[in-house]
Amino acid sequence: MAVGLGPLSALHPVAGFELGIASAGIKRPGRKDVVVMRCAEGSSVAGVFTLNSFCAAPVTLAKKRVLGPVRYLLTNTGNANAGTGESGLENAARTCARLAELAGVDEQSVLPFSTGVIGEPLPVEKIEGALQAALDNLSENNWADAATGIMTTDTLPKGASRQFVHEGVTVTVTGISKGAGMIKPNMATMLGYIATDAKVAQGVLQDLLRDAANKSFNRITIDGDTSTNDCCMLVATGKVELDEITQASGAYFAALKQAVFEVCMEVAQAIVRDGEGATKFVTVVVNGGATHQECLDVGYAVAHSPLIKTALFASDPNWGRILAAVGRAGVAQLDVSKIDVFLGDICIASKGCRAETYTEEQGAAVMAEEEITIRIELGRGATSETIWTTDLSHEYVKINAEYRT
Amino acid sequence: MAVGLGPLSALHPVAGFELGIASAGIKRPGRKDVVVMRCAEGSSVAGVFTLNSFCAAPVTLAKKRVLGPVRYLLTNTGNANAGTGESGLENAARTCARLAELAGVDEQSVLPFSTGVIGEPLPVEKIEGALQAALDNLSENNWADAATGIMTTDTLPKGASRQFVHEGVTVTVTGISKGAGMIKPNMATMLGYIATDAKVAQGVLQDLLRDAANKSFNRITIDGDTSTNDCCMLVATGKVELDEITQASGAYFAALKQAVFEVCMEVAQAIVRDGEGATKFVTVVVNGGATHQECLDVGYAVAHSPLIKTALFASDPNWGRILAAVGRAGVAQLDVSKIDVFLGDICIASKGCRAETYTEEQGAAVMAEEEITIRIELGRGATSETIWTTDLSHEYVKINAEYRT
Repeated sequence: MAVGLGPLSALHPVAGFELGIASAGIKRPGRKDVVVMRCAEGSSVAGVFTLNSFCAAPVTLAKKRVLGPVRYLLTNTGNANAGTGESGLENAARTCARLAELAGVDEQSVLPFSTGVIGEPLPVEKIEGALQAALDNLSENNWADAATGIMTTDTLPKGASRQFVHEGVTVTVTGISKGAGMIKPNMATMLGYIATDAKVAQGVLQDLLRDAANKSFNRITIDGDTSTNDCCMLVATGKVELDEITQASGAYFAALKQAVFEVCMEVAQAIVRDGEGATKFVTVVVNGGATHQECLDVGYAVAHSPLIKTALFASDPNWGRILAAVGRAGVAQLDVSKIDVFLGDICIASKGCRAETYTEEQGAAVMAEEEITIRIELGRGATSETIWTTDLSHEYVKINAEYRT
Repeated sequence: MAVGLGPLSALHPVAGFELGIASAGIKRPGRKDVVVMRCAEGSSVAGVFTLNSFCAAPVTLAKKRVLGPVRYLLTNTGNANAGTGESGLENAARTCARLAELAGVDEQSVLPFSTGVIGEPLPVEKIEGALQAALDNLSENNWADAATGIMTTDTLPKGASRQFVHEGVTVTVTGISKGAGMIKPNMATMLGYIATDAKVAQGVLQDLLRDAANKSFNRITIDGDTSTNDCCMLVATGKVELDEITQASGAYFAALKQAVFEVCMEVAQAIVRDGEGATKFVTVVVNGGATHQECLDVGYAVAHSPLIKTALFASDPNWGRILAAVGRAGVAQLDVSKIDVFLGDICIASKGCRAETYTEEQGAAVMAEEEITIRIELGRGATSETIWTTDLSHEYVKINAEYRT
């Protein structure tokens, strides 16, 4: 029951970036669970990775190998290869080595990505057995299939695409993502893959991705649980007939930056819209903070409050729970008499207490919508932050109580 | 479906402390929702209060008045009088003034306490109308009725009592509490009342309460939502024929301290056992930390993780979720290769990955119990902390989605 998420829109192919999907039967026979992505020789590749101390074996490997030339991204679902210690690293390296052998490239140029249950040994043979089929399937037109191939508890595939024209040449940015639970990315989410045919120096690409991820993936939360496997990769194949982009590329740099940001934001928000059990898409805006951190502290206190999330599920304008969450967010010397809270355009609390003009009917009307904005005005400064989240439904409990059964 | 919580055990009366219950019909006609407590003249009274910036009007008033002589504690359920601004303060003061008038005491000696829905105007007339009946009902033998009278979403009344003998004289400590949701006390929980007939200087009493609350009320969490109305009061009537207790009172001081601590711990844990929708009573022990704060950070990351809480509900030993929560707790330079995790006595993760001896059957056996201990050994130092919490069930969502309807 994804909120406002329809079928995939057109995902434009990116010259020099091919995707191949196969079935290894990791969790269920016949399910597409292995995705191989090939980057054209000379591609620049940037990555952002989870800050969870228990980062998974594939993340450890991918973080190291992204610094050298990258040719293949190898993704499996059904098993996260996390909490698996030394043998997990060996297993991740083995699957990469096998793919490198089949493809005739250096094994250091293959980066592994895994998502699924934490703490189980990676089924290496099953994955190895599916690699040739994935390679045989490689095509620039497989974005939609790959978006489906990386899904776990997702109910819908997630992708976005933008094109812009520079000096008469069309430049494409296309991306896909997966994720529905254990979502509070802290660098990027598990998993995002974005590619462009622009030619971009690696350092510039890394800055572009970090900046876009900070404003998109790093501002969404479903349950506050940062995954051990979060990764977001940005590949620039350089296949377009234009000069290499640097920070000094002016309008061209700005156009690419905007396209990358829009693709990141669309696939990041798609993760929230498909959040486990989500029935609402909730935007939490915090304005008037003295610092970005205090805006985020307030925003996350609201976005993570089980009491607010259940009230959102029930379409109950229980704004007292919002005030209580703001009050416990740990902002030093918070003057509650300066705080206003809005549900959509309706002022529900003014100067720290119920707005005189507010009626329960007004609040109920906003809460009945599928897309809800909670806006908090702190009245302390000029800083703002926005976070996107979901409600907490019976279905969330059901999905996560039954995940491994 | 409280976990391991039976009917109230015997609550010994405390000489000089009387309780009276009445019905004001605040939320439902006929429900006991007003409790008046009378402290004998000359009682010492200590209090700890919520640190939520949006503290409720009665909390603001009680914090101020506890510094002077205290004669009456006036509690209502069904309405929290929080987020109500200036008129909330006036309403709280009005109910206290009316009680003072009826009882013939200074209105500054009456402290108000409220619990219930946030943000609605306090129904002053209804409360005032019930005060005479509550006064008429005052008795030292009414602890059990008062424990019921302060309940909101609680399914069972909560109380505990201890007695010890000093120099041939019996000293009593009795306490009651309420709370089942919006529970992550930060000073104390909404609401706890403890009384003793010992004679204790106010400063000593305040230290005793702060210390006991820190180790009991301030270590429980149900949903991580700190209430706007948390208060815990400790009254010492001095009616026992013994000298006043000071820090220098040696064994007598130690015995009282222990009794107060045990009563606090029992009624604090009772709140967790009666947590909204709780089907498990979960103890999270963090050992081997370098500081208390990092132990608490890890403990709360585990205790608040919706993914761990739903796994507990499902009796699923999904220990990967525990590792992931430890890894995102924000502990600087956490060496995951030193971390062991135990479920009950079973080592599930050793040196950061699945223990070789661990079998899923062992984990499932522990998780099937109603009372579960999760122990995390950080291997960084000699500091420990313990937190008590619950699982996250369908029922929690149901209760909080339907709270106001």
